[in-house]
Amino acid sequence: MQKKCRIDEAMKRKYPEQVVLVTTRSAKGRENVMAVGWTCIVSGDPLMLALGIDDESYSYELIRATRRFVVAFPGERMSREVLFAGTRHGHKMDKLRESGLKVQKASVVSASLLADAVVNLECRLVDVYRPGDCPVVIGKVVAAHQNRDTRLKRLYTVGQNYAMGKVRSTILKKR
Amino acid sequence: MQKKCRIDEAMKRKYPEQVVLVTTRSAKGRENVMAVGWTCIVSGDPLMLALGIDDESYSYELIRATRRFVVAFPGERMSREVLFAGTRHGHKMDKLRESGLKVQKASVVSASLLADAVVNLECRLVDVYRPGDCPVVIGKVVAAHQNRDTRLKRLYTVGQNYAMGKVRSTILKKR
Repeated sequence: MQKKCRIDEAMKRKYPEQVVLVTTRSAKGRENVMAVGWTCIVSGDPLMLALGIDDESYSYELIRATRRFVVAFPGERMSREVLFAGTRHGHKMDKLRESGLKVQKASVVSASLLADAVVNLECRLVDVYRPGDCPVVIGKVVAAHQNRDTRLKRLYTVGQNYAMGKVRSTILKKR
Repeated sequence: MQKKCRIDEAMKRKYPEQVVLVTTRSAKGRENVMAVGWTCIVSGDPLMLALGIDDESYSYELIRATRRFVVAFPGERMSREVLFAGTRHGHKMDKLRESGLKVQKASVVSASLLADAVVNLECRLVDVYRPGDCPVVIGKVVAAHQNRDTRLKRLYTVGQNYAMGKVRSTILKKR
């Protein structure tokens, strides 16, 4: 049974919510990383991802300048790094280096892969779309990588105030 | 450590993925429901949601015609209904009625709320955006409702082939 409520009250019940890390690299080699929770697939073939991001972010500046980035699904051991990426600004520091994240070379783009992520998706910028109060970056996936550890699972945002956690699932039988 | 792989192989590691139900109602009162996994927030204020849907779906026809719909987060006891909504077409049957989903009247739009969902978000169509192979419907949330049962949790897609399941999360301490 439903009862009417404030929109923000209802949205407290959305968790767990996925979180991804996005890496970028300037033409001069300066790197950055950010955390994004507003993300989903928006095309199947070719595969495209949407990322709702912050107008003021250094990552957005690098994405527009280079039109390349990497979207990584963080692994469960990366909660500290995701929190760091999600709560600091890249304009004044090398966030990727200071985060302690281990990197690997990508195959198509110059931004780095994250070695301990579950998956890394190399992307080319297709469009920046703005339906509301923030830019939505659309990336076409041009190459993919996965962790050699096939048991490694994604990290999720499991509650408000950047609560990071692991998630375990059980398939439900049809009644 | 990452190894290069096919894009579709990498995407098998995306689960659990959220799933929502979308209800619609034609001017003549014919209702429909569909399941959508490609969805995320794309604006915070006003709150807007993106839904990547099927060009051929009856729901898409109703959304364009009425510019109104409801997005519901299904509860854990709704796996059968979500599977039904996700695997049938609404052109030839009244999917909402045949699904057995219990409904309630919405406050602003004419489409129905789902009584057993965790949350229902009444939406007005803002835009249809098409970056790739499918339309992405953008809805502005105009009213919200939540289940009186505050312990009720969302249902997720937990694996390929429409595996529906419950998820349990644990907050990870920062190392």
